[in-house]
Amino acid sequence: MAHKVIFDTDPGVDDAMALLFLHRHPDIDLVGVTTVFGNASIETTTRNALFLKREWGFDAPVAKGADETIDPSRPHAGWPTFIHGDDGLGNIGVPDTVDVPLDPRPAYQFIIDTVRANPHEITLVAVGRMTNLALALRHAPDIAHLVKQVVIMGGAFDVPGNVTPAAEANIHGDPEAADIVFAAPWKVVAAGLDVTTKTTMSRGFLDAMAEKGGADVELLRRVSDFYIKFYSHAVDDGMLVHDSCACVYVVAPGLFTVRSGAVRVVCGGLADGQTIQKPDGMSFGPSEWDGKVSQQVMVGVDADKVLALLARTLTA
Amino acid sequence: MAHKVIFDTDPGVDDAMALLFLHRHPDIDLVGVTTVFGNASIETTTRNALFLKREWGFDAPVAKGADETIDPSRPHAGWPTFIHGDDGLGNIGVPDTVDVPLDPRPAYQFIIDTVRANPHEITLVAVGRMTNLALALRHAPDIAHLVKQVVIMGGAFDVPGNVTPAAEANIHGDPEAADIVFAAPWKVVAAGLDVTTKTTMSRGFLDAMAEKGGADVELLRRVSDFYIKFYSHAVDDGMLVHDSCACVYVVAPGLFTVRSGAVRVVCGGLADGQTIQKPDGMSFGPSEWDGKVSQQVMVGVDADKVLALLARTLTA
Repeated sequence: MAHKVIFDTDPGVDDAMALLFLHRHPDIDLVGVTTVFGNASIETTTRNALFLKREWGFDAPVAKGADETIDPSRPHAGWPTFIHGDDGLGNIGVPDTVDVPLDPRPAYQFIIDTVRANPHEITLVAVGRMTNLALALRHAPDIAHLVKQVVIMGGAFDVPGNVTPAAEANIHGDPEAADIVFAAPWKVVAAGLDVTTKTTMSRGFLDAMAEKGGADVELLRRVSDFYIKFYSHAVDDGMLVHDSCACVYVVAPGLFTVRSGAVRVVCGGLADGQTIQKPDGMSFGPSEWDGKVSQQVMVGVDADKVLALLARTLTA
Repeated sequence: MAHKVIFDTDPGVDDAMALLFLHRHPDIDLVGVTTVFGNASIETTTRNALFLKREWGFDAPVAKGADETIDPSRPHAGWPTFIHGDDGLGNIGVPDTVDVPLDPRPAYQFIIDTVRANPHEITLVAVGRMTNLALALRHAPDIAHLVKQVVIMGGAFDVPGNVTPAAEANIHGDPEAADIVFAAPWKVVAAGLDVTTKTTMSRGFLDAMAEKGGADVELLRRVSDFYIKFYSHAVDDGMLVHDSCACVYVVAPGLFTVRSGAVRVVCGGLADGQTIQKPDGMSFGPSEWDGKVSQQVMVGVDADKVLALLARTLTA
């Protein structure tokens, strides 16, 4: 049976690749796309989701999500236009408006309704800030027991962050929301920098996919050029496919090693946005992890096989 | 030329092994032992240092150090008697008092005086809380430029802590002091749990050393029995020789891989006492690590060679 997936996303260049993977994979039934602010403003990420829906022709509705952190008093830090471009898709010239209808509901309500209508069947794949998921839990705590699993791209567990030495961008963008998501009584699996920074797609690999994959992948290639140039400080002519790691996990969990344990998110101070897991079975003194739900954190990846699965799926 | 070492310590079982190594190694000139609270009260750790001085016959003076955190408002958590015993040395029955004179100075003053008298020659090896070092810096900031290097046992950089999922015991015991030590303009090299938890001495190895090493090592074996039993949850009939790692680094730095970068310590909140390094060369947004001194963090260890060097030195 296909995995019914709601994709919560802030496209975003690597979001676009992940979205095309979800759309194309035969064992995934993409039932909705919900947008969130992060890689760009909510207007831009939502416009981009609609643009990709039009270009790629997927059926799933797009619902517009949060435009501020769950604690609205958090200061806003500006958009990472140096990574994703002014248009959020690598400055390819996305039209200002896209004539594709939005779902009328806010993202959190779309999530609640869809989960309740498909009990125990929905996988939430969340690759931006965790705001929409936290809002859904706040408005409908019952959904925690109705979701099949939550797979996120976020966190940095045994490795440094990418926004600060402590914190990864998605979690740092709304730490309070992430702490709510990790604490909820549902199954969370986190693809953090521990695995995503080991999953590098070279420009040559992407070009080869584009040659075989037709117009859809050619668009991906164009979108990714700016992002690849940004990553030149860390990656030799290639890109980290952060968000795709979370999507691949849905159909191929065996390509990842996971570690089980309660996860807390630091909210405020030097380590703001840091994700810290208490591995199950490790003994500590009393701590603020005690009694929290064990979640799964990816600590290892077979990156070559992840890339091969991406290529097979995008060029099929 | 021998390395002139002041050993700042809270004996403590693994402290005792480290102390015997410093006393025995031909290239180390142990010029002082300063005590600090941590593994037990300051009265107990100081008594234990004097006891070991009497038993092992080293010449270095012992100076009594701090009995509270550098921020005295921090709550006190009790002594880890379940690890080091009620007497701090594995419940071997250390006499209540030991008739060996103490240096009249407080530890921080002993450190200041000795560093000033031996400019650019003193290596501070600190394997307890960082309180005495922070006090020495507070009273005499000039010593930062007069110390050769500071080698500490403390921190957990790419691995979980041991007191909480975030924090290692020595740093967690006085985070403000540790942040002062890492921020000072001297060279700090940290042996954290990243390397010390990979350096396991089996009971058989210790027994073999005791057979060859005479009464001094036999005492070490007796002291360590309780500690080995405590470690049975994590180690199969053996012990982690945390503090010895820092001492071995002084004479054999090549047995360790280090990573350079500013280190900050989280003070307060969920991650209280966590050590976070910003690796040099990694780009981040503006952060609280900017402009701080790069320090060295051990991230790899040739544990077999560390153990072999310990054995050679203790049984010579």
